[in-house]
Amino acid sequence: MVAVQHEKDGRARIMDAARTLFSSNGFHQTSMAQLATAAQVSVGQIYRLFKGKEDVIEALVQADADAWTVKMIALRTRLDASELTIEQTFEQMLLHTTEEKDEALSFDILAEAFRNETVGQTIGELCAGFRTTLREFACVANRDLTGEALDAAEEMLLACMFGFGHRSLSRPRLSAPVAAHRVAQMIVAGLKAIR
Amino acid sequence: MVAVQHEKDGRARIMDAARTLFSSNGFHQTSMAQLATAAQVSVGQIYRLFKGKEDVIEALVQADADAWTVKMIALRTRLDASELTIEQTFEQMLLHTTEEKDEALSFDILAEAFRNETVGQTIGELCAGFRTTLREFACVANRDLTGEALDAAEEMLLACMFGFGHRSLSRPRLSAPVAAHRVAQMIVAGLKAIR
Repeated sequence: MVAVQHEKDGRARIMDAARTLFSSNGFHQTSMAQLATAAQVSVGQIYRLFKGKEDVIEALVQADADAWTVKMIALRTRLDASELTIEQTFEQMLLHTTEEKDEALSFDILAEAFRNETVGQTIGELCAGFRTTLREFACVANRDLTGEALDAAEEMLLACMFGFGHRSLSRPRLSAPVAAHRVAQMIVAGLKAIR
Repeated sequence: MVAVQHEKDGRARIMDAARTLFSSNGFHQTSMAQLATAAQVSVGQIYRLFKGKEDVIEALVQADADAWTVKMIALRTRLDASELTIEQTFEQMLLHTTEEKDEALSFDILAEAFRNETVGQTIGELCAGFRTTLREFACVANRDLTGEALDAAEEMLLACMFGFGHRSLSRPRLSAPVAAHRVAQMIVAGLKAIR
């Protein structure tokens, strides 16, 4: 048990250091030696816990995917319990996309997804999970949605979510809470209008 | 004149080779020697035409920004001439975002925008241009839009545009033309519903 806990602590420390270093320098420009120094472990220790740098990246992507899955389930639960309206659900979801702190790293990971099959697959699976929940949300907004209209609703929601979460480079005028509130209103109106 | 044309050809050849190489390998993992070989010029020739690799990246970003500006002006002109409805204008704009061939490179560039001030500034200026045109489009969809509602419309349009253009990793079910058509319908309905 102590050994397992020790291994968990080691992985967490390496992943934390990796997130910071990869975010400021890019992961291709970060060496395992730099990562070991930042995480205060030996290079050998990293290789005992991860197959290599790509495996550290994959672990970061998986951790982000898991956190997103938890968030989406929590929103779904609050919607089902009528603690949130569908508009508030979208608002919370949009707001959560802007809480991402490591935007440079997130773009690096997306670029990597085209060059590294494992990363591409993890991103694909994460999106598949999003799509399932977004379809459910769309049907709450408009019970009559089926077929192509529902597929398109899923597309629109995923696009809004992704784009909204990457707005910082575009020099937005509105604060994230105000924008999320208003965009959620437009999304619900858009969903209600199609059939 | 011959010298100027020769310089233009050299720049174009280097930029074409850079787009291909950077896209498959990432630009941090591409050396100037590799770029020279692919462009069939000497390394010295690259340095006569560009300050360095960052300058090549900046030239690629600028070329993409210029192409987008031309596209948005063309859409605006066709909308003004009533050749396109506002819904068709959004549809065409969304479709254009999916025509991007170098998605990995585009994510690399976005990551770089956080680490390289010049690239960040070019992206910011490109988005400022988008925002101006998107506001105009939003007002065509709903003449009553002003103030915060108009600012939010701009946010929603930019988010949809960005997210839609980066959908390939998310394993979409619908083809780009079908999705663009339906999403444009939802966008117009969303814009009409707010005030």
